[in-house]
Amino acid sequence: MPDDAAVTVGRSGRRAGESRTRESILEAARNRFGRYGYDGATIRGIAADAEVDPALVHHFYGTKERLFVAAMRLPVVPSEAIIAVLGGERLRLGEEFSKHAGEILVRNMLTVWETGYMGSALLGLLRSAPTNDQALTMLREFVTNTIMAAFSEILGKGAASADAAERRYRAGLVASQVVGLGFTRYLLKLEPLAAASIDELVAAIGPNLQRFLTGDLSVQKR
Amino acid sequence: MPDDAAVTVGRSGRRAGESRTRESILEAARNRFGRYGYDGATIRGIAADAEVDPALVHHFYGTKERLFVAAMRLPVVPSEAIIAVLGGERLRLGEEFSKHAGEILVRNMLTVWETGYMGSALLGLLRSAPTNDQALTMLREFVTNTIMAAFSEILGKGAASADAAERRYRAGLVASQVVGLGFTRYLLKLEPLAAASIDELVAAIGPNLQRFLTGDLSVQKR
Repeated sequence: MPDDAAVTVGRSGRRAGESRTRESILEAARNRFGRYGYDGATIRGIAADAEVDPALVHHFYGTKERLFVAAMRLPVVPSEAIIAVLGGERLRLGEEFSKHAGEILVRNMLTVWETGYMGSALLGLLRSAPTNDQALTMLREFVTNTIMAAFSEILGKGAASADAAERRYRAGLVASQVVGLGFTRYLLKLEPLAAASIDELVAAIGPNLQRFLTGDLSVQKR
Repeated sequence: MPDDAAVTVGRSGRRAGESRTRESILEAARNRFGRYGYDGATIRGIAADAEVDPALVHHFYGTKERLFVAAMRLPVVPSEAIIAVLGGERLRLGEEFSKHAGEILVRNMLTVWETGYMGSALLGLLRSAPTNDQALTMLREFVTNTIMAAFSEILGKGAASADAAERRYRAGLVASQVVGLGFTRYLLKLEPLAAASIDELVAAIGPNLQRFLTGDLSVQKR
């Protein structure tokens, strides 16, 4: 990219001007995401607030999700991480994937949470979101548009149903268990859940997620 | 109780002095529970802060749990509500209870949450607890000592295992799903989970809670 010297200079030598520009974009993004939610905030509007061209925001951050991730200081791009991890497992396991998706999900979730600084970022989200409605709206729309969409895409291919609405319902049920596990184990530190090993939790919770993904969830007629 | 006029006068005619005394006890309780957690706070210490005799605190509020419930303005005493509701179902269903405990749990949780002002109190707890460590400690100890203990007692009689540690683990798993459902459905309002009917959620989640309560959760040897 020799046509854009500012980008190729690298972190240590980055020009102060570019650094200031990025900071104003991120600040404008935090404000817009907070005020209008994830859906309502536009790159055009954020660019206008930061007094830069929208093309520059796209150049720096690519997609709205990546801009959100940078603005919220999340350590990874959730939908990319989900597709990378689960997509890799799906390639490895082939047709067996859909039978083990529940266990794979809970093992990966626990491993990611307990490795490096991802856990503290997730804890930060769980801690801060409930305290104000703007943050909740933002988190809800972000989860729906990125995390649930990625789950729904990658799990849909192996799941019992090809129906998009049903896939989203199943993904939501998975989210209810996974968020609850994060809340009780890592935030509330409820014993003996907090002391259980990953293997124990995979054995306990994996089959339940599996049922959410591929089991019969219909209301029985009496 | 004609030996204690202050108590028998009733809400409207309650003497201003008693009302002030109750308020100082509740304020002292909130401070002590916040500072020392649910376990660490004692009725003796709370009485000392409020400059009253511990016997008066017992007289007004009975147990520490009831004092906590009054101080936190919860609309019901959780362990009593659990024992009343689940105990009633257990009497009604007899030996069938343990087979349907999962569905009974999720139906009752959803009904209680969506009826009257219990839901807003629970939402308040979910919203405020994550923001500071004192509130988290308090909530953890309270949940462990009252809600989990009540679950553990009432479910233990019909559960697969009589082992107390295993019962607590199973109760913790149930808590992870129930708290997560509350968080995603009522706080995050994640669709299509938020729009699902109680019957649909009972069908989807009931059997998963049932597995937590009575299923085989052991790690399989390979």
